[in-house]
Amino acid sequence: MENFTYCTPTRYVFGHGAEEKVGEMASRYLGRKVMIVYGKGSVVRSGLLDRVKASLSEHGVDYVELGGIEPNPVDTPVYEGIEICRREGVTGMLPVGGGSAIDTAKAIAAGVPYDGDFWDFWAGKATVTEALPVGVVLTIPAAGSEGSGNSVITRLDGMHKISLRTDMVLRPLFSLMNPELTFTLPPYQTACGVADMMAHIMERYFSPTEDVEITDRVAEGVMMAIIEEAPKVMADPCDYQARANIMWSGTLAHNGICGTGRREDWVSHFMEHEISAVYGVAHGAGLAVVFPAWLTFMAARKPAKIAQFAHRVMGVTPTADLHADALEGIARLRAFYGSIGLPLTFSQLGIENPDIPRLVEKLHENKGESFGGYLTLTRRDTPEIYRLML
Amino acid sequence: MENFTYCTPTRYVFGHGAEEKVGEMASRYLGRKVMIVYGKGSVVRSGLLDRVKASLSEHGVDYVELGGIEPNPVDTPVYEGIEICRREGVTGMLPVGGGSAIDTAKAIAAGVPYDGDFWDFWAGKATVTEALPVGVVLTIPAAGSEGSGNSVITRLDGMHKISLRTDMVLRPLFSLMNPELTFTLPPYQTACGVADMMAHIMERYFSPTEDVEITDRVAEGVMMAIIEEAPKVMADPCDYQARANIMWSGTLAHNGICGTGRREDWVSHFMEHEISAVYGVAHGAGLAVVFPAWLTFMAARKPAKIAQFAHRVMGVTPTADLHADALEGIARLRAFYGSIGLPLTFSQLGIENPDIPRLVEKLHENKGESFGGYLTLTRRDTPEIYRLML
Repeated sequence: MENFTYCTPTRYVFGHGAEEKVGEMASRYLGRKVMIVYGKGSVVRSGLLDRVKASLSEHGVDYVELGGIEPNPVDTPVYEGIEICRREGVTGMLPVGGGSAIDTAKAIAAGVPYDGDFWDFWAGKATVTEALPVGVVLTIPAAGSEGSGNSVITRLDGMHKISLRTDMVLRPLFSLMNPELTFTLPPYQTACGVADMMAHIMERYFSPTEDVEITDRVAEGVMMAIIEEAPKVMADPCDYQARANIMWSGTLAHNGICGTGRREDWVSHFMEHEISAVYGVAHGAGLAVVFPAWLTFMAARKPAKIAQFAHRVMGVTPTADLHADALEGIARLRAFYGSIGLPLTFSQLGIENPDIPRLVEKLHENKGESFGGYLTLTRRDTPEIYRLML
Repeated sequence: MENFTYCTPTRYVFGHGAEEKVGEMASRYLGRKVMIVYGKGSVVRSGLLDRVKASLSEHGVDYVELGGIEPNPVDTPVYEGIEICRREGVTGMLPVGGGSAIDTAKAIAAGVPYDGDFWDFWAGKATVTEALPVGVVLTIPAAGSEGSGNSVITRLDGMHKISLRTDMVLRPLFSLMNPELTFTLPPYQTACGVADMMAHIMERYFSPTEDVEITDRVAEGVMMAIIEEAPKVMADPCDYQARANIMWSGTLAHNGICGTGRREDWVSHFMEHEISAVYGVAHGAGLAVVFPAWLTFMAARKPAKIAQFAHRVMGVTPTADLHADALEGIARLRAFYGSIGLPLTFSQLGIENPDIPRLVEKLHENKGESFGGYLTLTRRDTPEIYRLML
């Protein structure tokens, strides 16, 4: 087990009516004027935005709005938001939505008190030491951003999609999580969220660090819960209990509890970020394609942990052949993804002729010549993994 | 799933050399003068106390000491500590040890700014709204107090052993956790710690709330990790990896992550508190005796969840007979406890003729006429459970 520091101070308010606390929580944690950040209109149509505003007003919290955030959020609205926040004297960020709204809000939060270009943080040229406080009303369980200090933003100039990871400064102070708000999520988006949370766990689980049984068992438990509950959500989008299990799983998948004590991997996320940046696919759908390919590549080189995943999570009966067991586990993971309507290949992702050399070039441009926790990958390996997605 | 609020802001610094951070962390979180609270001398003999003092001095943090805290901590040193803290202008509490030192320190932390008798909080006559900050150097993984807002204190007058549960105000701001500091724990104390952490999970796991798959899986995972790692620790007390797994498991067992979304039970703890208050046994040893008895009583009345425990945690092959499966799971739990040297009966606990009527009387005096989450128990039931421990 590696040394680690772990701290997750986010206050989660979970369950029926959680969003009704927004005015009270905002007045306590976000100050007198918030920026509400949201996406393309579903929170408007559902009436949630009006309810949020009413609750804020009731508690004397003023607000400005920044709507229209797209999936795979880009830098343009971040610059716009920073300018508005400065002009309007905004004291805290209130994203209402999923990862795109939250990550945009975090980027604005980091940018407002910073003298330079907010992208400096994502480009690794500066460290976030100060930010506006962030509170969340979650409507899409997927990114886990409601409990993490991370934010993924794409710079339009060059289509660089980069994940910034901070320890504390960008962690939401509160997250209001009512599973009922997820009833109206379209099936494909629900499934993409499931793939995203599975990936967040697997990036931590497939680690070179040995003797981390406690973290392995927690990670395996969260994956088993997701695999058990996801089909229920797909069968009945208004199944409160299944939605609740999926929603909380998405938070645990990414708030760090599945990663304590070990080196992590994150190559699959890096590889997917290039796909979604270039082809504009849903991040979760991209991950459903990337992960089995990455696992297949790894199974041939370092099968033990993948076999453990197969045995403990996917119910594969152990044999003497770890590689075969690993492949059977991967096949079952693919079958699970397929059963909830996720794509498994570039083609099913709607990309008929992927430009693999371009993806590889951008990947190494963004991440360097070699990277990866489970095994180190170079330009010799990454094209092969992309080709396994064909 | 029940609505819940979850927040665990404790900063855990885990691994080799974690305790070396004590001066830096104390100066940041505990102010200019701390009270070091410790037990019966092992931290003195090991040299840890001297190292802690040196680190404090190096960071300009002054200190006073309160040593000699006994297992199953009582109110006397709490009163003494409150008086010293007020007189000396102590700004923060620094327990160095396990649950007894930490719980005593928390009680002092609550008592210092309070105008009345600190016991008011434990007696339910007042609510803790303010306390000195607490930081921990953990040397005994068992109580989980390093990550909880709880504190168990026994009032000597009447031997009332009561657990106070707070949401936030008594949670340690930091906990420094170096598994090496646990190498010298005697085997029996190590085993008692294991029983304590298992009990903390089971109190949450055996819940009347259904459809909490995610929390079930996490709890099952932590229990499986403990059952896997405990024998390694018993076989080799200096096995760093196994000690590390056990130490972190003890925190997860009690920081709330195994309880999110459900009603909890805690009857076994209530029943054990009477045993350890009256007979002065180690809390964990008492729990090893109480829990299988409680489970056996419950298996006859509500076997489903106990059978799930048997199947998923204890590896019992499912049959059509849930009661039989539950009993087999309990038998394996007893075998596990026995294998690490824990007592399974009153007699093995060193209590030849337990005064069950007295235990029952005190139990209901402290906890009321009926209690329990999994099933409600009354005076008709509790003597039977105590008799199952004979």
